[in-house]
Amino acid sequence: MADISPSRWDDQSAVPEVVVGRLPQYVRVLKELLSDGVEVANSQQLGQQLQVTPAQIRKDLSYFGRFGKQGRGYSVRRLLDELQQILGLNEQWNVVVVGVGRLGKAILSYPGFTPDGFHIVAALDNNPSLIGQEVEGVKVRAVEELDAVVKAQNITIAVVAVPVRFTQQVIDKLVECGIRAILNYAPTSPQVPESVKIRSIDPVLSLQSMTYYLTNGSE
Amino acid sequence: MADISPSRWDDQSAVPEVVVGRLPQYVRVLKELLSDGVEVANSQQLGQQLQVTPAQIRKDLSYFGRFGKQGRGYSVRRLLDELQQILGLNEQWNVVVVGVGRLGKAILSYPGFTPDGFHIVAALDNNPSLIGQEVEGVKVRAVEELDAVVKAQNITIAVVAVPVRFTQQVIDKLVECGIRAILNYAPTSPQVPESVKIRSIDPVLSLQSMTYYLTNGSE
Repeated sequence: MADISPSRWDDQSAVPEVVVGRLPQYVRVLKELLSDGVEVANSQQLGQQLQVTPAQIRKDLSYFGRFGKQGRGYSVRRLLDELQQILGLNEQWNVVVVGVGRLGKAILSYPGFTPDGFHIVAALDNNPSLIGQEVEGVKVRAVEELDAVVKAQNITIAVVAVPVRFTQQVIDKLVECGIRAILNYAPTSPQVPESVKIRSIDPVLSLQSMTYYLTNGSE
Repeated sequence: MADISPSRWDDQSAVPEVVVGRLPQYVRVLKELLSDGVEVANSQQLGQQLQVTPAQIRKDLSYFGRFGKQGRGYSVRRLLDELQQILGLNEQWNVVVVGVGRLGKAILSYPGFTPDGFHIVAALDNNPSLIGQEVEGVKVRAVEELDAVVKAQNITIAVVAVPVRFTQQVIDKLVECGIRAILNYAPTSPQVPESVKIRSIDPVLSLQSMTYYLTNGSE
């Protein structure tokens, strides 16, 4: 069993964004290992699951302190606990969905958010026929109420599912209201200040990054 | 107006995957610029849209040859054409969706694939009550027919929207049938051979990569 001595993980400015982006995948794999009864794992095993090199895993974790002893592997449970704490996954996050069209409705009905601590507590739209209706247990309110809703319900994260032509203005408004993390489903690249994090869910971009290899041959 | 002399883009082994992953975003921004009537753009302008540094853009494009002359900017249309060709976006790609539950149905009804050349021509499920039905103009067939369907319809890309517990076995079967590009919607990290490309769409992972900054403060 390995020692865990995280010591530097509060120095987050030093951690590359690409490393932070991999940590949730580590958390997922560690959870899977734990549910399979695996209590200790080395970086070879983790690397195989994640399809990254063991050296990469050791390097990634080194940003947050010394999690394992050379040759003795990681305690799956303790590494999982630490990574969850580092990522803020032990907290509950209140989320607002802006845009309750077909996509927004699918997001509201997605069962995967709540078990991971993301609670959709509010939904906004500008369509009068939707406002006041309840969708998946959440009452749809007018976009004009955004600021009040964010403050009243202690919301820190927004999911944006509005048409492309409205995306930037909605995101500007979210930033004005103090939202610092945005998940964007519109197929566009919105601008945000440096202090705001944004991630886009875009299946077409993912497909297009693979056709390169189909076109040019990858063997 | 800048010269475009791509010369090395057939040497794809030299291009880091992260660079390839950015190219579709370049394509999107160039399309937006073109529709705004912008004919020439420099790396400052592109970088601002993409929120990457101008140096990064010049470095990314340098993998594929010399696209612009120092200080004169890129011809938006020609850079767009070249990148689309490099990524194989002038072709039509036939796609099979495996799993026609709520998520699979949402994917089948998503209007964003076809304009970008991705045609969902087949859908498979193992649920007898779905097999034979038509969803969004596509007839649902049994998973057992996968190999025949892939060959008959010249399918090269698969979208996987089955429950987590079936994901790996479905993906193994896709690889057996010769599929080389997979878009996975299940919240798990499936294993594929090196010759196969896989991308996962996972909103929870995206959210979790942002809570790090909310937790640790990003200013």
